[in-house]
Amino acid sequence: VQENAFVQLLQSLTANDTAGLLHGIGDDAAVLRGNDQDWVVTTDLIADGSHFLSHEVTPEHIGRKAMAVNLSDIAAMAAKPVAAFVSLLLPSETTNEYAELVMKSIIEIGREFDCPVAGGDTNTWAGKLAINVLILGKTTPRGPLLRSTAQPGDWLLVTGELGGSLTGHHLDFTPRINEALLLNERYELSAGMDLSDGLAMDVRRMCQMSNCGAEILLDELPISRATKQQTSDRGQQVARAIGDGEDFELLLAVAPTEAKRILQDQPLDVPITNVGICVAETGVWQIEDGQRLPLPVTGYEHGTK
Amino acid sequence: VQENAFVQLLQSLTANDTAGLLHGIGDDAAVLRGNDQDWVVTTDLIADGSHFLSHEVTPEHIGRKAMAVNLSDIAAMAAKPVAAFVSLLLPSETTNEYAELVMKSIIEIGREFDCPVAGGDTNTWAGKLAINVLILGKTTPRGPLLRSTAQPGDWLLVTGELGGSLTGHHLDFTPRINEALLLNERYELSAGMDLSDGLAMDVRRMCQMSNCGAEILLDELPISRATKQQTSDRGQQVARAIGDGEDFELLLAVAPTEAKRILQDQPLDVPITNVGICVAETGVWQIEDGQRLPLPVTGYEHGTK
Repeated sequence: VQENAFVQLLQSLTANDTAGLLHGIGDDAAVLRGNDQDWVVTTDLIADGSHFLSHEVTPEHIGRKAMAVNLSDIAAMAAKPVAAFVSLLLPSETTNEYAELVMKSIIEIGREFDCPVAGGDTNTWAGKLAINVLILGKTTPRGPLLRSTAQPGDWLLVTGELGGSLTGHHLDFTPRINEALLLNERYELSAGMDLSDGLAMDVRRMCQMSNCGAEILLDELPISRATKQQTSDRGQQVARAIGDGEDFELLLAVAPTEAKRILQDQPLDVPITNVGICVAETGVWQIEDGQRLPLPVTGYEHGTK
Repeated sequence: VQENAFVQLLQSLTANDTAGLLHGIGDDAAVLRGNDQDWVVTTDLIADGSHFLSHEVTPEHIGRKAMAVNLSDIAAMAAKPVAAFVSLLLPSETTNEYAELVMKSIIEIGREFDCPVAGGDTNTWAGKLAINVLILGKTTPRGPLLRSTAQPGDWLLVTGELGGSLTGHHLDFTPRINEALLLNERYELSAGMDLSDGLAMDVRRMCQMSNCGAEILLDELPISRATKQQTSDRGQQVARAIGDGEDFELLLAVAPTEAKRILQDQPLDVPITNVGICVAETGVWQIEDGQRLPLPVTGYEHGTK
């Protein structure tokens, strides 16, 4: 199965069914209209060998990641988590102690973000470890922050630093729930998402759903210290910052005046950086040393090569 | 991992966290209090080798079952399904065609019960097929039908027939959504659940949560035609009817006057049968040929053995 093509098929198969729901497959979370309030629902499954290697990481890290990737999707909608539902697929040889460490870690990060585990399903089988988490959240009076509402002229902002997931950051990142809620309450944001697959791919998704394009300012990227320690080669640093994925920072589209106010205020404990601008022309470009070139779908290619 | 013990551990770990939610782990679905309405949430994961054998059944059957077991949990709460979220864990060698047949089957049974697929997560990996479904439902003005509210003196009713899952019924059963909604609207029900692990085990669960006991009338069991075709031995038939599991019929506790009205009316397309009574003394008994014996935890043992 080619995952992207299959997800597109699912979207087309269910498009009519979900017309009564506000937004279906495609954003970070589904939005369901309640009688007087919108709910957001996100689900992510992580599996041994694909999203983590059980023989290389601790059960606590696995549990934390299973929950954190979902909390990050709730953050991407600028919503508040309400409850989590956890389905475990445990290898039959898993000990109770190991399973307990996984679950305690899930429960602990849930508590950090007021997101109790309210249900789930526990199964043992002959296969490897997999964990499905679904989180139900509530939107604030501002409503959900969508991917599809970026406007040409909006500045593109990111929280925190980019790169470093390959050195372990993907196991201990902080979901930007609090940051998203604060920014969405205090400022007018056009659109938002979390960076799970790297800026290069994710900005393309936001642009596609918003029917616009973007220019990414490669000279302005907030490259993580971990990435700088890994390599002193500038091209390599940029490639990792926009291509490694699993940064789980926020990507926001904000009208210029409001963006300047955010950049001036710097209201978070982590930096907020302007990494580009939305443009009317569809497609994604890289701006580097004053040169404007298409940003390859596969990520960064150095302009002078 | 011993699943039952582990689930009990989870309940104790999360008991305090979920105090603000109406009901946590333990019922067929979690109940979440919205501002003006209760939501029910249920999730069940089915995996190749545990809940189905992918080399013996069609992809359509697998998809249908993944969804139907969850719809049955929504029925158990006498709630209306609103939306489903489907996480797929696909073997890397799965073809697009196969995955599409699974999903189309999921979408199709969803449509039958007004339950669109509104989100999910698709992953490929080196392991076997597993599907996690979560369904979000709404309660009716009657509120959720719980397991924990059976009263001594209540009659125990079941819909449909028991036994037959081993001959394939677990792959094509009809979730009792419509039946549960009709009964819960027209009659005053004390408690309810769906029969997923066999009457012998499930009635024990209802009794434990309701802090009462039960007497099961073995002579009255609505034994399925499939079971009768499998064996003419009465003891074998009873053992299968109460022990095979995966009937996915409703078990209801109803005050005697109201129960008599239901049995008289027979308002469903399937029969409703009185299979026992709730008693104040905790424990579960079998009544057979006028004899009252403890019903073994493992299921039926013939009284004269």
